[in-house]
Amino acid sequence: MLRFLTAGESHGPQLTVILEGMPSGIKIDRESINQWLADRQKGYGRGGRMAIERDQVSILSGIRGGYTLGSPITMVIENKDWTNWRELMTAEDTAVLSKRKVTRPRPGHVDLAGAIKYRHQDMRNVLERASARETAARVAVGALVWQFLNLLNIEVLAHVISLGPVKCPSQEMDWEVVQEQIRRSSVCCADDEASAAMVKAIDRAREAGETLGGVFEIMVRGLPPGLGSYVHWDRRLDGLLAQALMSIQGIKGVEIGLGFRAGFLSGSQVHDPIYYGAQEGFYRPTNGAGGLEGGVTNGEILVLRAAMKPIPTLMKPLASVDVITKEPVEATKERSDVCAVPAATVVGKAVIAPVLANALLEKFGHDNIDEIKKAWQDYWDYVRDF
Amino acid sequence: MLRFLTAGESHGPQLTVILEGMPSGIKIDRESINQWLADRQKGYGRGGRMAIERDQVSILSGIRGGYTLGSPITMVIENKDWTNWRELMTAEDTAVLSKRKVTRPRPGHVDLAGAIKYRHQDMRNVLERASARETAARVAVGALVWQFLNLLNIEVLAHVISLGPVKCPSQEMDWEVVQEQIRRSSVCCADDEASAAMVKAIDRAREAGETLGGVFEIMVRGLPPGLGSYVHWDRRLDGLLAQALMSIQGIKGVEIGLGFRAGFLSGSQVHDPIYYGAQEGFYRPTNGAGGLEGGVTNGEILVLRAAMKPIPTLMKPLASVDVITKEPVEATKERSDVCAVPAATVVGKAVIAPVLANALLEKFGHDNIDEIKKAWQDYWDYVRDF
Amino acid sequence: MLRFLTAGESHGPQLTVILEGMPSGIKIDRESINQWLADRQKGYGRGGRMAIERDQVSILSGIRGGYTLGSPITMVIENKDWTNWRELMTAEDTAVLSKRKVTRPRPGHVDLAGAIKYRHQDMRNVLERASARETAARVAVGALVWQFLNLLNIEVLAHVISLGPVKCPSQEMDWEVVQEQIRRSSVCCADDEASAAMVKAIDRAREAGETLGGVFEIMVRGLPPGLGSYVHWDRRLDGLLAQALMSIQGIKGVEIGLGFRAGFLSGSQVHDPIYYGAQEGFYRPTNGAGGLEGGVTNGEILVLRAAMKPIPTLMKPLASVDVITKEPVEATKERSDVCAVPAATVVGKAVIAPVLANALLEKFGHDNIDEIKKAWQDYWDYVRDF
Amino acid sequence: MLRFLTAGESHGPQLTVILEGMPSGIKIDRESINQWLADRQKGYGRGGRMAIERDQVSILSGIRGGYTLGSPITMVIENKDWTNWRELMTAEDTAVLSKRKVTRPRPGHVDLAGAIKYRHQDMRNVLERASARETAARVAVGALVWQFLNLLNIEVLAHVISLGPVKCPSQEMDWEVVQEQIRRSSVCCADDEASAAMVKAIDRAREAGETLGGVFEIMVRGLPPGLGSYVHWDRRLDGLLAQALMSIQGIKGVEIGLGFRAGFLSGSQVHDPIYYGAQEGFYRPTNGAGGLEGGVTNGEILVLRAAMKPIPTLMKPLASVDVITKEPVEATKERSDVCAVPAATVVGKAVIAPVLANALLEKFGHDNIDEIKKAWQDYWDYVRDF
Repeated sequence: MLRFLTAGESHGPQLTVILEGMPSGIKIDRESINQWLADRQKGYGRGGRMAIERDQVSILSGIRGGYTLGSPITMVIENKDWTNWRELMTAEDTAVLSKRKVTRPRPGHVDLAGAIKYRHQDMRNVLERASARETAARVAVGALVWQFLNLLNIEVLAHVISLGPVKCPSQEMDWEVVQEQIRRSSVCCADDEASAAMVKAIDRAREAGETLGGVFEIMVRGLPPGLGSYVHWDRRLDGLLAQALMSIQGIKGVEIGLGFRAGFLSGSQVHDPIYYGAQEGFYRPTNGAGGLEGGVTNGEILVLRAAMKPIPTLMKPLASVDVITKEPVEATKERSDVCAVPAATVVGKAVIAPVLANALLEKFGHDNIDEIKKAWQDYWDYVRDF
Repeated sequence: MLRFLTAGESHGPQLTVILEGMPSGIKIDRESINQWLADRQKGYGRGGRMAIERDQVSILSGIRGGYTLGSPITMVIENKDWTNWRELMTAEDTAVLSKRKVTRPRPGHVDLAGAIKYRHQDMRNVLERASARETAARVAVGALVWQFLNLLNIEVLAHVISLGPVKCPSQEMDWEVVQEQIRRSSVCCADDEASAAMVKAIDRAREAGETLGGVFEIMVRGLPPGLGSYVHWDRRLDGLLAQALMSIQGIKGVEIGLGFRAGFLSGSQVHDPIYYGAQEGFYRPTNGAGGLEGGVTNGEILVLRAAMKPIPTLMKPLASVDVITKEPVEATKERSDVCAVPAATVVGKAVIAPVLANALLEKFGHDNIDEIKKAWQDYWDYVRDF
Repeated sequence: MLRFLTAGESHGPQLTVILEGMPSGIKIDRESINQWLADRQKGYGRGGRMAIERDQVSILSGIRGGYTLGSPITMVIENKDWTNWRELMTAEDTAVLSKRKVTRPRPGHVDLAGAIKYRHQDMRNVLERASARETAARVAVGALVWQFLNLLNIEVLAHVISLGPVKCPSQEMDWEVVQEQIRRSSVCCADDEASAAMVKAIDRAREAGETLGGVFEIMVRGLPPGLGSYVHWDRRLDGLLAQALMSIQGIKGVEIGLGFRAGFLSGSQVHDPIYYGAQEGFYRPTNGAGGLEGGVTNGEILVLRAAMKPIPTLMKPLASVDVITKEPVEATKERSDVCAVPAATVVGKAVIAPVLANALLEKFGHDNIDEIKKAWQDYWDYVRDF
Repeated sequence: MLRFLTAGESHGPQLTVILEGMPSGIKIDRESINQWLADRQKGYGRGGRMAIERDQVSILSGIRGGYTLGSPITMVIENKDWTNWRELMTAEDTAVLSKRKVTRPRPGHVDLAGAIKYRHQDMRNVLERASARETAARVAVGALVWQFLNLLNIEVLAHVISLGPVKCPSQEMDWEVVQEQIRRSSVCCADDEASAAMVKAIDRAREAGETLGGVFEIMVRGLPPGLGSYVHWDRRLDGLLAQALMSIQGIKGVEIGLGFRAGFLSGSQVHDPIYYGAQEGFYRPTNGAGGLEGGVTNGEILVLRAAMKPIPTLMKPLASVDVITKEPVEATKERSDVCAVPAATVVGKAVIAPVLANALLEKFGHDNIDEIKKAWQDYWDYVRDF
């Protein structure tokens, strides 16, 4: 089973992740991870800090000569701006901290609830870890794990289907269309007109001191039927994928296949008939289930959607209260992105990777890529003959 | 930490659950659990089997003289119809099984993917466990755990906000209104007119050989700020709650607070300003966050919603394929509810109980209710003074 | 991954276990489980209750027509004496309990520490669950899991190597000798003379109102090299096996291979040289490591030993204190075995089964026995060619 | 719950550990961790590499201004000798690796079994991670967690009770005696004569090209009764502590209290009578149980012992086989300590820290040290009044 722990404060010296359980013998391309990290920093609507960061991953264990060893993998993303933050963020005892406390909690962030929970008076002690900066570590994990999944011809795509008030007109798009179209969109949207409207919406929001959220969709193809399990609730892939997505900063809704729309339709409109062809084996003409029935992959494309709320830190700050004086104040301003939905597509693709990989490792064994490839091939042969 | 395993096939002798980790000294009322089980079986739109079952729980360990001991709790729900199924479902070796195989997978169920995964030729070996009958076991767990949470004045409500094409007009309703109104609704809807329309929609669906899904909302009040944690993604309450809800049979979407609507609004419309009053302490005039910021409770009412797809077993069955002959067939008919959304509200309330209880046990310790009550009271005093 | 929860008080209605994660398609013989349960109750030195019990297992889920389904398996062992205990042990609220409290903690048991932890005034609330009766549930699990391991030609043996002051003269015995000799020993000892002396020691202890412990050894053969892992401490098989054995009631010491003796020898006396033969592949002339190097199986016989303390409940009770009056008293007498070491060999064999099975499932995948057998065979072929 | 992952190859750039779950507000002294790391490198019998290393910890997250934040803590121990190893151990693809393969497995190490498991041809890919170098990371964790435990007046000591053939004459020594005596022993032995004999034994072994193991004892005082639990086998502290100790490289035996000796004695010689005094509360005149009854602390000193085998890498190497040519060879020599038992006492103290801390967090809650101190004090008051 893959396990990983991420660590690091937003303005600390580095983000660190240890990923345990990767099979041996997998070729890892560090530049591919860097590309994922770069993708996370792109997207129209990001603010100034993204330029500073230019994240790069260092690999400090678990990989030798370009291949996984089977031992835990350490990845580090250094904070390029650390020298400017060292005094404020040092692990050592220092007098400076008491003078620069954050005492104005930002609505929509965990500043206040976190300070209460952990008994912090300086809410920097909360916000530094709660920051979405942490997703860079999860993206590094996902980018690495996708190199494993790609070896088995499992592929992933994600695109923005709405951004603020602008909806992508088509709700169901083909893989190839999406893949092609999002390349020329600065907001990762597969519809040119909607893409242009989204950019405008971001500009308007910026002018208004506002922020915007949106909805994105993830598609995965190449999964065989039979990953995940219905035998116990906490082994269902639907629940595990929902947890992974909902635990991304700012996500407030998750759906699979038809999702909420399924609630408004009749049974015959929702469920996907089963057909069989000598060439295709079992197949479905529709994919309302989004590739999951009973928490198990059914061989169709996995379709997930997540809704992201607008970034809570506004240029026209919301009403807050100073936690020391209890006086009404404006919330602290900590960063200045207008919209992070395009970036969230990258995070979304990343966080589902360990979930899918675990389902694979459970079914095909854990230790070595050649062993896994053999079991994988045997299983596909069996599936085609079923 | 609470752990539990559920077991039991739908037509097997019984459902069994073992719940490990409950503190000692909690008074448990078995009749209250039976009431939850009865509620799960009610709701306009259920079919004939619900009448047969009339679930009752037996408690076979972990409780003595009416109080939890701290040791694992065994609960059993017997299958009242077991004598009719014994021959087909016995654990013993028997010749009868090969003659009565289920070979027609039902679209929308895991019949086919499960048979492939576990190499079953008789899909009864899949459907018996994948059945939503299993939720009775999870309801027993939830009903018991809510007796613990209720001791701390934590309360839960759930109601149907849409059923098939019929939507409850008001999307945000007060606790007391919902609590009062759902009592007189046979579909657990807090709006009289919508309730009547939902009943009609069910009647129409039944006549058409169809089924219906819907959306329900759960509200929890009495939670202090500071449950759950932002420090690591898998400790966030939003993700854990999403997993619990999404892993209910038939659920295809989950949202928190404004949920998907948050994606379409601007930051200032979504986030909840922070106010302070000498009496109230910190409070919010709105609750777009649904009680969770950064995966942590913020002291407001927890608001969760889930979308249920229509029941996949239709009276006018969908197209399928016989897995042995590979001929096109109609899908097997296994049960006959038209709509289970009202029942799903009960399951929804149940499955979040262990998640919330674990967040509480983590913060307040595990062993004994008096110890927990003391820590709970101390914490509330601290929160009020923060 | 196999998971299981056991439940049940010693004099409650039943012991229950749910075992989750067993692959499908494994033929399960209930009588074999009953035989393990009978073996656990045998052994010279057991007291009267063993006669009452005659444990029998019922299988109430997860197995159909004699084969595992992949779904959770429920096993129940009823308490044959329940009618005599119902009034005292009922889950329902009852007045009788306050009149028959156990207030005299027994040294060597967890009575006092458990009462303090869980705030019980009646120590029956502790001792009923802490009782070694619980091991019957773990034996049922082990007996079932061994049916899986046996399919892969993995075999287990255990024998008593010392009982009270009597030591088995030979410390290293061959598999076949042990297997043959223990059949005619009433104390599961593979040396006839030692066996007779052990019986006498038990008789003397009984006369003296005393109890005896001892040391037993478990051997497992048929494990390939490469189970377990050195890459992270909590995946090492040595640690996991030690946990399983040390968590048996009454066990105070665990060792692997030479164990404590290894501490007194020089390196060249302890480590097992590596040889290679065209027929045998890699092999070792000695087995000081007990089959585990770096927490990983090395292909040799796994050799584990555990030390059991004498049963704490003596006929000449130890000094104690009444927890209510604080007056000095004699400890409560609750049962009357003189020696349970032969029984502990059965428990020992049982508790390591899930640990070994998990190492196998991790390496060879989880879902179906045919799939696992194929991967197992492929791996052995690879090992022989390495 | 505390969780941690360690990572790092022995000659890689660094060891890394992420520790998740530490409460906030705990003052952390980095120098104290460095002292533990230094202690791990000391002890008569260590070879040349220990001098090179001089381990120092860097703290890169989770601590700010000297106090824990509640967020994950990253600790790094750099390899001072990395420049000499960079070419051989780089994560990047490189041609050099194929020329310097390790193909001679060392008996007593996991070289061969690990290579088979993970399909490595170069056994450096195994030995780098399996190396006891990894214990430096676990010592860093333990050293940090002991700072938390010390705040609650929980203290730990460890000493060598036998080293090779030399046994410390007294098997049960007082805390103060041990604490005082081990300061002047270069082998961490609390008996002057034995200490001198141990040093000589190490010298003799070195001359003979041999290595030595031994047995050490850990004592912990200040634990209240009621940590750990008897209610489920995997929550028993005895099992969890045994796992932690047995998973240290080279450990082949673990015992608690009388341990294996308990197997040879009668019940009345083993179990600890319970007394009560107005001042002392409940107490025991003896401590055969080693502070654990039924897997739960009973308020007496916790006493654990572990046996370490001699270091497997000998200067007069054991017989091995080249895995490529299959020719008989001498095993690779990789390092040159003669005895690491004194160092193992440090590792032993470290690895039990997270186990004990988790038992505490479970009972007293998780979030903040002041909260925990309050619950701790309340519990001690309750215990004294019990």
